Amino acid sequence: MQGTMMDVQLTVPTILERIRTQYAGREVVSLLVAGRDEAGNPLPHTHRTTYGQVAERARRLAGGLLGLGLQKGDRVATLAVNSFRHLEAYLGVPSAGLVLHTVNIRLHPEQIAWIINHAEDRVLLIENVFAAMIPAIKAACPTLEHIFVLGPTPQPIPLPGVQDYDTFVMGSGALAQYPELDERDPAAMCYTSGTTGNPKGVVYTHRSTLLHSIVSAPKDALNVGEQDTVLPIVPMFHVNAWGLPYTCAMYGAKQVYAGVFSDGRTVARLLQDEAVTITAGVPTIWMGLLGELDRAAGAGEPYALSGLERLVVGGSAAPEAMIRAFERHGLTMLQAWGMTETHPLGTASGVPVGVAAQSDEGFGLRAKQGRAVPLIELGLIDDDGQKLPHDGKTMGRLIIRGPWVASSYFKGEGQDNFFPLDGQGWFDTGDIATLDERGYMHIQDRAKDLIKSGGEWISSVDLENAIMAHPAVAQCAVIAMDDPKWDERPLAVVVPREGQSVSHEDIRDFLAPKFARWWLPDATVTATNIPIGATGKFLKRELREQYRGYGQAQGVSTPEARE
Amino acid sequence: MQGTMMDVQLTVPTILERIRTQYAGREVVSLLVAGRDEAGNPLPHTHRTTYGQVAERARRLAGGLLGLGLQKGDRVATLAVNSFRHLEAYLGVPSAGLVLHTVNIRLHPEQIAWIINHAEDRVLLIENVFAAMIPAIKAACPTLEHIFVLGPTPQPIPLPGVQDYDTFVMGSGALAQYPELDERDPAAMCYTSGTTGNPKGVVYTHRSTLLHSIVSAPKDALNVGEQDTVLPIVPMFHVNAWGLPYTCAMYGAKQVYAGVFSDGRTVARLLQDEAVTITAGVPTIWMGLLGELDRAAGAGEPYALSGLERLVVGGSAAPEAMIRAFERHGLTMLQAWGMTETHPLGTASGVPVGVAAQSDEGFGLRAKQGRAVPLIELGLIDDDGQKLPHDGKTMGRLIIRGPWVASSYFKGEGQDNFFPLDGQGWFDTGDIATLDERGYMHIQDRAKDLIKSGGEWISSVDLENAIMAHPAVAQCAVIAMDDPKWDERPLAVVVPREGQSVSHEDIRDFLAPKFARWWLPDATVTATNIPIGATGKFLKRELREQYRGYGQAQGVSTPEARE
Repeated sequence: MQGTMMDVQLTVPTILERIRTQYAGREVVSLLVAGRDEAGNPLPHTHRTTYGQVAERARRLAGGLLGLGLQKGDRVATLAVNSFRHLEAYLGVPSAGLVLHTVNIRLHPEQIAWIINHAEDRVLLIENVFAAMIPAIKAACPTLEHIFVLGPTPQPIPLPGVQDYDTFVMGSGALAQYPELDERDPAAMCYTSGTTGNPKGVVYTHRSTLLHSIVSAPKDALNVGEQDTVLPIVPMFHVNAWGLPYTCAMYGAKQVYAGVFSDGRTVARLLQDEAVTITAGVPTIWMGLLGELDRAAGAGEPYALSGLERLVVGGSAAPEAMIRAFERHGLTMLQAWGMTETHPLGTASGVPVGVAAQSDEGFGLRAKQGRAVPLIELGLIDDDGQKLPHDGKTMGRLIIRGPWVASSYFKGEGQDNFFPLDGQGWFDTGDIATLDERGYMHIQDRAKDLIKSGGEWISSVDLENAIMAHPAVAQCAVIAMDDPKWDERPLAVVVPREGQSVSHEDIRDFLAPKFARWWLPDATVTATNIPIGATGKFLKRELREQYRGYGQAQGVSTPEARE
Repeated sequence: MQGTMMDVQLTVPTILERIRTQYAGREVVSLLVAGRDEAGNPLPHTHRTTYGQVAERARRLAGGLLGLGLQKGDRVATLAVNSFRHLEAYLGVPSAGLVLHTVNIRLHPEQIAWIINHAEDRVLLIENVFAAMIPAIKAACPTLEHIFVLGPTPQPIPLPGVQDYDTFVMGSGALAQYPELDERDPAAMCYTSGTTGNPKGVVYTHRSTLLHSIVSAPKDALNVGEQDTVLPIVPMFHVNAWGLPYTCAMYGAKQVYAGVFSDGRTVARLLQDEAVTITAGVPTIWMGLLGELDRAAGAGEPYALSGLERLVVGGSAAPEAMIRAFERHGLTMLQAWGMTETHPLGTASGVPVGVAAQSDEGFGLRAKQGRAVPLIELGLIDDDGQKLPHDGKTMGRLIIRGPWVASSYFKGEGQDNFFPLDGQGWFDTGDIATLDERGYMHIQDRAKDLIKSGGEWISSVDLENAIMAHPAVAQCAVIAMDDPKWDERPLAVVVPREGQSVSHEDIRDFLAPKFARWWLPDATVTATNIPIGATGKFLKRELREQYRGYGQAQGVSTPEARE
């Protein structure tokens, strides 16, 4: 049967051509570092350019990189903050048929070198503020042939192969023609945070990047359009800043980048001054913003944020209390969920028809991770790999499949995470979750953080979110402590708000109306902070280490804990 | 380089599974025919069902069709109006690996038979209101083995192979498992209107259908989400109702179907009573609605349509006057453009940043066809196939490429329309258009309707739109008449508003400030109506036939027409 549709490939140059031909005048704003104050803190300087300029420079970058002799599929690493230059790399590197490898700047230098060596990166684009790392990286990474510094340095770095990025870009001719690309060719890669074992490389294809950028746009996901101004606080080294640089470029939204700045005050000002409509980040960022909004409102000088339509929160679960707190400032928070292996968008948590967003049911649903976006399928399995019901109660290992979900890691590592079921390939997220009849997914825990008490499961995440709603609590992590009778029992590690204190009895009394008695923590300890990893998540592994044997030592085990 | 993304295929069962698992409770409303009044006009009856029911029945339909012995790729035709049953076919037929062939019910019965025979359809789903055609179709179409009647008939049709659809569906078991599908497998087909030559079959793939349904959703296109209620007045036999049945199902929007009804009063009531947020149709429909809104407002009983966010208009150009007229009722019209060969969405005409939608510039841009949606590329060529500049002035043949644009017609006909340029495949739309620096496309004419006067081109569409803004004019078509000196000169065929009259001088005076003198029509004739084809477009071919030799006969040729 003849008669069909064009086999047009879904590739990143499509996005680059779109900003060049349709949105050339649209602005890209970046906070750069203008200098330092007396305490050594960076001072912001606002840089403005346009998509037309970004497209021109991205094409020169692409031409320049190929001129260095790089071959299709070669990796180009970035160690960079959010800025227009990083955006140029997002568009230019894949459009040259090369692979953009965004490296997490918050990792230990040894891990950074390990990752660059593992990816066999041939080029590194490094932000000027990290220039001090260059000699060490150069010494540790033999595959790196060229290093380009993004932005001016106080003085040139006299090392062979190290050049100024702007000089290189403007001295290169624009790519004359995009190379022929198959949509399944690699476009970008990002390593998992590796809280267990070595980091693993996830390779994004042109197809997955394009599909992800389109599925992210509709209103039930991120709601991006040409009239929007988007501030992705989520770093561009972290799962492609949740795809926002691509989605915004595809749809012509103005982009605002905060560079090295993420404190509440700078973020609040940027949201106000640039009339941002959509912003996205992890809960830690929003806690800082919330503090600043509270302070400003209390001082009678509230920020003007009436145009801010949604704060997207992801990376870890947003407690319902935080969603409600932003609502008091007239701001709507949308929870989304995903992983490095899922590009990341897997779910978004709007309310269904008939449920008011500000009702108790609405807040309850919005505190879940939400429902699958189109083309994503979710499932639950037990330890034997059998499918479990979607009844909103049964906890199981969350599995996922879709065209922007990894089917293997770089160099074929971590095969255990990928498996067939009913003739289809799935990825095991390592999360324990429930799914309800309407498709709402609720993560209960990382499988490894789950508390197994007397053969039953207790969700540390549920307890944490509930405890964080206590007015005297700033932060909380719940971990398992060994228990001779129940195997494991919950221990709450609580950071009180400044000037406040909270006792174990306070916590138990506060939780009692909401949970079965056997879920309640057997002990509560206070701490000045909770250790956080390179992607902003609690390092529960460290906490478990720190409190190993705590139960037995303190004699807190509660034999009657199980009802 | 190992490490990649899942090769999940983009197929229609994804949409079916989505309404089954995420949106089962969402409503589907259909106006059915409850009977006839004394004049023989149909009386509406409101039918309500849910996506859950539609999904269940679609899976039974799929199972039933395969039970009849149909093989992958076999065609199942529909001759049906917009209703939940047609939606079941939209989802169930492709999910069985079969091809949904929607036949235009407004065609002449001989053309219908020609198309069914050409497509070699094995099954026909026919609306009960057209049941009288069954014997003739059955006799003319030997490939048809089974005919199912959608909805009750006054009495059974005693012909072999003719059955009641509901009985067949509810007597069939649901498809146990979806067949293995490649995303490039055919999912649906639709014939072009064939105003010249025989109709040609356009075959949509699963991939093109899925991509189209996702790209249609964001706010710069149709703005569909779960909270929406969508009334596609555009028929489901007309380019998949612009993809809305699929887009709405993908995103869980409530769907409202008007069945055989399209008059202003029924549409206005339905928009109001079902709290519709998005509706879509051709200009003719909106003229009828506008008349009803004007009448109701004049009578002091305006409709309550505050929730209606946008009226999507396509099929033919919406005159600026119509866009402005709806604005006076507080309603926003969005122009979109496409063709049977483009699935159809090619462009949508929102305003860019910095232009107010209600400013003169805004109205001017909104009266153009708009800018390409993501993944669609537009170009202009001259008669030698050379690319022309995108300067907003140069007219050229509009060419298009993208993953939901045809690369060939069914059975390989009409090869001339598909051609390579710069190593890529393109489709020649047969339209004459301009493209400006920002990407706004403006159709000047069908190539064959363009008026070639003294070697220069005159856009009949531009003249028509301008003349329709005249207060005494209801409808207008401008066609070429032969001219001994200039080859062709414009003739305006005008239908005055009821009780009004309009002269040739009126028209020329009205147009004079807006056009060069040599563009002005040399003659104006009044008519009681303008012939309209099966897809709601003016049949200019018929008009040209009717007025052949008019200029010479009337002596209207204007030797000084050209300035």
